[in-house]
Amino acid sequence: MDTSIIAVGTELLFGQVVNTNAAYLSENLNHLGFNVMYHFVVGDNDGRLEQTLHRALADTDIVILTGGLGPTQDDMTKATVAKVMGAELKLDEKCLSEVQGYFTKRNRTMTENNVRQAYMPEGAEIFHNEAGTAPGFALEKNGKRIMCFPGPPRELKWMFEHCGRPYLRKFMDKQICYRVIREIGIGESDLETMLMPLIDGQSDPTIATYAKEGECTLRVASQRDTMEEAEEAVNDMLKRIDAVIGSSVYSYDDEELNEVVVHKLAKKGLMLSSAESCTGGIFGATITDVPGASSVFARGYITYDAESKVSILGVDQSHIDKYTVVSAEVAKDMAKGAMLQGGSDIGISITGYAGPDADEGGEVGNAFIGYAYEDQCGAVEVSTKRNDRRWNRNFFRLRMLKIVNEILDRWD
Amino acid sequence: MDTSIIAVGTELLFGQVVNTNAAYLSENLNHLGFNVMYHFVVGDNDGRLEQTLHRALADTDIVILTGGLGPTQDDMTKATVAKVMGAELKLDEKCLSEVQGYFTKRNRTMTENNVRQAYMPEGAEIFHNEAGTAPGFALEKNGKRIMCFPGPPRELKWMFEHCGRPYLRKFMDKQICYRVIREIGIGESDLETMLMPLIDGQSDPTIATYAKEGECTLRVASQRDTMEEAEEAVNDMLKRIDAVIGSSVYSYDDEELNEVVVHKLAKKGLMLSSAESCTGGIFGATITDVPGASSVFARGYITYDAESKVSILGVDQSHIDKYTVVSAEVAKDMAKGAMLQGGSDIGISITGYAGPDADEGGEVGNAFIGYAYEDQCGAVEVSTKRNDRRWNRNFFRLRMLKIVNEILDRWD
Repeated sequence: MDTSIIAVGTELLFGQVVNTNAAYLSENLNHLGFNVMYHFVVGDNDGRLEQTLHRALADTDIVILTGGLGPTQDDMTKATVAKVMGAELKLDEKCLSEVQGYFTKRNRTMTENNVRQAYMPEGAEIFHNEAGTAPGFALEKNGKRIMCFPGPPRELKWMFEHCGRPYLRKFMDKQICYRVIREIGIGESDLETMLMPLIDGQSDPTIATYAKEGECTLRVASQRDTMEEAEEAVNDMLKRIDAVIGSSVYSYDDEELNEVVVHKLAKKGLMLSSAESCTGGIFGATITDVPGASSVFARGYITYDAESKVSILGVDQSHIDKYTVVSAEVAKDMAKGAMLQGGSDIGISITGYAGPDADEGGEVGNAFIGYAYEDQCGAVEVSTKRNDRRWNRNFFRLRMLKIVNEILDRWD
Repeated sequence: MDTSIIAVGTELLFGQVVNTNAAYLSENLNHLGFNVMYHFVVGDNDGRLEQTLHRALADTDIVILTGGLGPTQDDMTKATVAKVMGAELKLDEKCLSEVQGYFTKRNRTMTENNVRQAYMPEGAEIFHNEAGTAPGFALEKNGKRIMCFPGPPRELKWMFEHCGRPYLRKFMDKQICYRVIREIGIGESDLETMLMPLIDGQSDPTIATYAKEGECTLRVASQRDTMEEAEEAVNDMLKRIDAVIGSSVYSYDDEELNEVVVHKLAKKGLMLSSAESCTGGIFGATITDVPGASSVFARGYITYDAESKVSILGVDQSHIDKYTVVSAEVAKDMAKGAMLQGGSDIGISITGYAGPDADEGGEVGNAFIGYAYEDQCGAVEVSTKRNDRRWNRNFFRLRMLKIVNEILDRWD
């Protein structure tokens, strides 16, 4: 089925806010087997929203809106949708008591304009909002469907996950099961070549690959009459994929790599320390992005100059003199230093050139990642061949996480 | 004049890529005095692109496209635009030699399909691309204009800056001068109230405020017959704004705060060290995001647990026992430790609760930022009142930068 996404909000047209909601919804709609044909962004203007709704309904079966559901005058999504679908807005008592409950729970007084949030188009299926106050809804007419979600990304995600996805599943002809695999190390075109024999000559399950920054995502999906059949087909395919590319996969459940690493460390009761040069704190930041990271990460060292690598981490000065500061030997010394000084089970380090410049003899995009655990110590060279500081630093971050993840997979 | 933005690329409809280009263009078009009425995203499909172009041209005067200018078969932006505008694609020799030059300079062989990039609609004004291979262009017909830029954000930005903005300025009735002010500390509505007396009763210059995450942006613009007059009007207004909110402004030229801080440190020849708890490396990462940071930042400490604050930074254990680890006293000890251990001129630190949880008696979103320089030492309490880990950590980052910036402004 074809879908389109309309984001409502003048702040998007001013460039104050980036439309991450459209990307989030697109990814999830594609995973469910829907085609996304268009994204639209319109301001808080009922005339242009109405026109855009008509266009989207003419071209696609399902139109998904985000934003404009709040309590203020410029939140006109509901009224415009109701008008276009020929429905009336009516006060929904259950919605009202939920909005009231949100304020009561937080010891705040509900202002009068919040009552607006409890008006809903007649005949709508209401989506509750446990992450905020504005409820969403879905409305059907003559086989065309409109779904409305709040604009704040946290609220949208909660509501799509808990209400939107189950709603979409309800009117699909077949049962779809899908899994999202994430891997680092094999590029998208190699991935397609390697997996081709698995899908040649069969139409279900399907495998689709998507390149992301520094990594790849694979969606494996099956549509069958029953969910059991679909799940079985997907699980069978996952086993076959695992046999081919398993060593580069870090998640079969669409998790972020920093979450995978933190959760594995916690499960094994291990502590990690980091020593960063060219990433300058990005690795520590990505680990501590994960709530609960304090149980696995206590210390990190940002040693941006050569002297601090020696005095803080105990890097051998003769290694710097002999091999330069961007070398496997220095990366190994740094990782050992991180482990020992940090009092941790695993030390991870990096030294390299993020760009735009490199020392003489060095190359932008080149780095050495060091690791140390128990009596093991080593270094891996990575090279992006790009002069893009932001891109390189993110690539280095992912590779450091990948190496820690591999060590954890080998850990008894 | 009314504009719309069309991004072309199936990767956007798959959710692999977020449409940051639309936000970048919207911000810059608004600054130039153009209204952005719509964003559209379509896949690599000529029928839907053609339809969207017709819609955009019907509703707006200028349509700006990004993406689909590359050398492969699915890059059909140029052909579709040419068709809609009734122009023919012709080989442009100058473009061809530039594309060839790009490959020669990098010692790479140009494949045959790259010749496609040198075909241009007849009558187009060509935009050269020094950040990549695909040239862009602008085409006018019956007062409607289409501008085409490459999809990669780095290439788009280079081309908009060097070719797009000058092109747009050429056919504006009046000369526009604008400056973008960035400030932290005064909320958007307070800002409007404070600046109201400056704009009351006059229509030029205009002041517009925009809330961004953790900060605010102001655009001051004047449209006059000559650029000199416009500049004078803006400069005069900037002085008056400075008198009202100057202490919270960190840039009158739309710079990022991390860049401002690194450049000031470099200019004054000062070194900075950091000691981070709840930000876990984000501060170090934001400083080292700026190329050349190594001349001002050599060491950072990520002391995520209490013990490391004592053993690495020399925090007084009795302060932790007496005031808890999230306290002004501990923040001050950490900042002193960062300065002394880091051998720097300025030490900056943070200890707080990013969320989702806080220790008993603590509050999520609450943090103390410590600073130390020469014989000065102090701490500032910040409180976001939000339970949003990502948001809080970014807010803390900005506040740490702001405090360093203020110290630098006071520095002799």
